[in-house]
Amino acid sequence: MIPDITIDPVLVERLIVDMAQFGAVGTTGVWRTVYSPEWSAAMDCYAAWCVEAGLVVHRDAVGNVWGRLPGREPGGSIVSGSHIDSQRPGGRYDGALGALAALVALRALREHYGPPRRTLECLAFCEEEGSRFPATNFWGSRAITGRIATHEADALRDYDGVTMAEAMRAVGLDPARIGDAARDDIAAFIELHIEQGPILEHRQVPVGIVTGITGLRHYVVTVRGAANHAGAFPMDLRRDPMAGAAEIIAGVISHAAQLGRPAVTTVGRISAEPNYPAIIPGSVTFTIDARHPDAMALAALYDHHETLMRDVAARRGLDITWHTTIDLPPSPADPAIVAALTDAAHALGVPTISLHSGAGHDSQVMASRAPMAMIFVQSRDGRSHTPEEFTSVEHAVAGIRVLAAGLYQLAYQ
Amino acid sequence: MIPDITIDPVLVERLIVDMAQFGAVGTTGVWRTVYSPEWSAAMDCYAAWCVEAGLVVHRDAVGNVWGRLPGREPGGSIVSGSHIDSQRPGGRYDGALGALAALVALRALREHYGPPRRTLECLAFCEEEGSRFPATNFWGSRAITGRIATHEADALRDYDGVTMAEAMRAVGLDPARIGDAARDDIAAFIELHIEQGPILEHRQVPVGIVTGITGLRHYVVTVRGAANHAGAFPMDLRRDPMAGAAEIIAGVISHAAQLGRPAVTTVGRISAEPNYPAIIPGSVTFTIDARHPDAMALAALYDHHETLMRDVAARRGLDITWHTTIDLPPSPADPAIVAALTDAAHALGVPTISLHSGAGHDSQVMASRAPMAMIFVQSRDGRSHTPEEFTSVEHAVAGIRVLAAGLYQLAYQ
Repeated sequence: MIPDITIDPVLVERLIVDMAQFGAVGTTGVWRTVYSPEWSAAMDCYAAWCVEAGLVVHRDAVGNVWGRLPGREPGGSIVSGSHIDSQRPGGRYDGALGALAALVALRALREHYGPPRRTLECLAFCEEEGSRFPATNFWGSRAITGRIATHEADALRDYDGVTMAEAMRAVGLDPARIGDAARDDIAAFIELHIEQGPILEHRQVPVGIVTGITGLRHYVVTVRGAANHAGAFPMDLRRDPMAGAAEIIAGVISHAAQLGRPAVTTVGRISAEPNYPAIIPGSVTFTIDARHPDAMALAALYDHHETLMRDVAARRGLDITWHTTIDLPPSPADPAIVAALTDAAHALGVPTISLHSGAGHDSQVMASRAPMAMIFVQSRDGRSHTPEEFTSVEHAVAGIRVLAAGLYQLAYQ
Repeated sequence: MIPDITIDPVLVERLIVDMAQFGAVGTTGVWRTVYSPEWSAAMDCYAAWCVEAGLVVHRDAVGNVWGRLPGREPGGSIVSGSHIDSQRPGGRYDGALGALAALVALRALREHYGPPRRTLECLAFCEEEGSRFPATNFWGSRAITGRIATHEADALRDYDGVTMAEAMRAVGLDPARIGDAARDDIAAFIELHIEQGPILEHRQVPVGIVTGITGLRHYVVTVRGAANHAGAFPMDLRRDPMAGAAEIIAGVISHAAQLGRPAVTTVGRISAEPNYPAIIPGSVTFTIDARHPDAMALAALYDHHETLMRDVAARRGLDITWHTTIDLPPSPADPAIVAALTDAAHALGVPTISLHSGAGHDSQVMASRAPMAMIFVQSRDGRSHTPEEFTSVEHAVAGIRVLAAGLYQLAYQ
């Protein structure tokens, strides 16, 4: 039996607006990178709100803030949360909404139903965006799942050259103790997050139940030919890497478009050498970001793209090389949790659709240690990573109700 | 009757090597920008060699150096020459070879045939490359043809912020007197230049007779769509300017390739915004360099490219804008001079082909005031604008013989 969970929209709006004051940029922007003064203030506030909500606060070795509602029975915790850090600048919702949603859900559950059978925890991850230390992201969830390598804190540097270890010490954390943040007692993890895409809006539903997180690969591709004078070199004697790159780029994008959802392929970055209007380039370098939530389909997508690259280069007499900078397998959500959330939404009368996440999230890191699922709420115009990102309180509340009802099923029944 | 002109290869090689010492970079490179100390030394040397050759030296108001072999009859001068400045760095041949060729030809004609009927002049243009002042080129030929605007010397700045006027004063020239360099007494202009392309080498002939200089346009094209998350935005809802740009780039290059010689289209420069691997770009900007020596065919080439740009943007829901930064009409060579050069080569037994120039040259500026023609000599591997550019003494001598025999026809007969 799923109770008709009530969530106060005034409270939700107040928490979103108040949290957005830490690192505020303009009227709606947020610039809150890990271990910055704004970040510390936001984490202190989150901890204070947890105390207000009757939760037991714990800050771990990397600064993740946990709010605990102890269960009556032993066993692993049911955890929900998201990250508190932002892009530079980002908006109010990416990350923060999920941390606040978990807090609001636990507060409502405690108020209405008292102590749960199994322990519930809400969580604000310290870092996910990679917006201060470009070579890392998922710092919070990697610490919790024991996936931070020794000495990594000394090797990672931010855009100003400060190491992660120095940044941690500056906020009172000891990098030698990172390993202490690892947990092996998480029984389930649920993250509420803005969709960052247009699908929910397009389908006019407030909430999506995420069936899995996409697998993805980032390629850096370099096509090499022969730089020559744009006027004096006839077309038939050229080895023009721009011609080859354009054919490959058009081809990989077109292939993903023909496959249709959920395949996506993006070329976001490109440069030519020597990059003069009147010189045929000697080389063109570009990225390919290819994603699919199904492992077999993903492999086929990669295979198509690589075959096309080889074929175009060979036909045009060009040299081509590539390497991958990111290679993540798909992370399927846990079917039992997905079913619990879907049942909850149905019982509450919240319209939902199933969809996958095309973006990466802490949940895919948490999936290595615990069954995982995600709840998406509408993003206006699909925007994120910008001060213009927006989710209505109505949609946020709908998502939090589904989250709370799902947590109720997992922790109270 | 065309005499069997003899040119001393030892002299030609010595002049090339000695001139290359002014601004030498490594073993074969030259870095000699207008009004630099290396440039001044090269011009002094050229003037001294003219005196040695029995010519009357004149330096004009922008520093062009002229060597005059006065004719027995009144009338306009028959002029030959090329530019003394280089890329940064360039090689020994681009420009300098044509200035030296004219000097060597006049020296040989004077030695063998004495004073001409019509006045002959050799010429080292002060500047053509735009390698110091990026917004100008053809500074020397524009001065001679009266095409430098008032105050242009104050407006043009080099890469260090020095104005053209300051640079002129530093070598003892008065920018207020630029207008004095204009001449209206040039009866014919012939420029010998390295081909800068692979056609002569490919056809295994030392010398080409240029029938005209290509017309060309430089477009700067910007395609705008909507920047969004590479993972969360499905292909069918994207407005991806990279997809549109790739289709346009592949299309315009492919069209020129299908037309075949002498059409050429090049995309040498490209950038994306915001240029991140995981973000669909908001805009992509690239250049198109399109060339054809025939005015009608050139117009058709532009029309095809512009139609394709409009069609692709419309079909993909993208915004597209472009502007032209260079727009030069074709410059046909003078048929009578071309015939004189062709006859000369035939009489001398020098194998030639007719071809057009795909690159811009001082000759196209001179064409506004005088009948013009050009002689090309082989470029090894078609290379230029690099220390690796190379033309054998044998091919240089073959070109100079054709030049001298042509000048003989125009000035002695």
